[in-house]
Amino acid sequence: MGVPLGEEDIQLQRCPHLVIKADTPKGRGVFATKDIPARTVIDICPVLILGSEENKAHIEKTSLYHYTYNWPIIDASGKSKTAQAVIFGLGSMFNHSTQDQNVGWIRDPNRLIITYCALRDIETGEELCISYGSHLTFKDTDTAPPTLPEEEIEQLRMIELY
Amino acid sequence: MGVPLGEEDIQLQRCPHLVIKADTPKGRGVFATKDIPARTVIDICPVLILGSEENKAHIEKTSLYHYTYNWPIIDASGKSKTAQAVIFGLGSMFNHSTQDQNVGWIRDPNRLIITYCALRDIETGEELCISYGSHLTFKDTDTAPPTLPEEEIEQLRMIELY
Repeated sequence: MGVPLGEEDIQLQRCPHLVIKADTPKGRGVFATKDIPARTVIDICPVLILGSEENKAHIEKTSLYHYTYNWPIIDASGKSKTAQAVIFGLGSMFNHSTQDQNVGWIRDPNRLIITYCALRDIETGEELCISYGSHLTFKDTDTAPPTLPEEEIEQLRMIELY
Repeated sequence: MGVPLGEEDIQLQRCPHLVIKADTPKGRGVFATKDIPARTVIDICPVLILGSEENKAHIEKTSLYHYTYNWPIIDASGKSKTAQAVIFGLGSMFNHSTQDQNVGWIRDPNRLIITYCALRDIETGEELCISYGSHLTFKDTDTAPPTLPEEEIEQLRMIELY
């Protein structure tokens, strides 16, 4: 019944030392149960790209909108646009922090995945936080200026993922 | 910076021997890269419950609707209702098969998670498939009668998960 496995296959990866806590001040959050070294892959998540029309007409009006990510697409006329993506993985569960951000991400628009990895050593018991960047839908209570998505990608480019 | 970890925490689990293939006849699908024994936990996924109004007005009109699951809720007046849930994990990626279904799931409405596990031994190269049950949004091409969700839950109750 098996089919051949190939190089094109997307190898899933997930750091095994994670829990979800339900009762944090920010709602649900993801926490480390062991020390996680810098550059560790935290999760590789498949994504669903939402059409910009259905996003504007519908998704923006639902609670799901707070969970979606900006996603760059090229439309039928070759124009660069920003669509929204739903992340089928822990990417949808990470809370936001600019000061204590310890997880960054890289989008892979061709393979429709997003890879999260540790930007620095993460201690046991620490919450895993990302910077939502330009898609912040609530008031940012952190005092530090937000990390630009571009800077974040730059940070991640320096990380040798595999 | 760490916070104490407790019994209430939801321990995440993910079978590490999985890939996504992008080019199957059913679109993207999840495949085993090693033999997976029966009863193995495949994934524990957090879910987002969508309000029935926002679901009817919006989500049903988007491509996301094909990815949501029925989810039992008790409304403000104490009445049992069926809401929809978005699964933030591989649960959103498994294709449907009644004949070759090899993965079942249990919802945990209190902890807002859904646990997927192997209903039988799964071979290297086999696709991981679930039965969508009553939420099938396309024509079922399998010849066997669909597994009722209740039967499925019964099957899973027999599985000692932890």
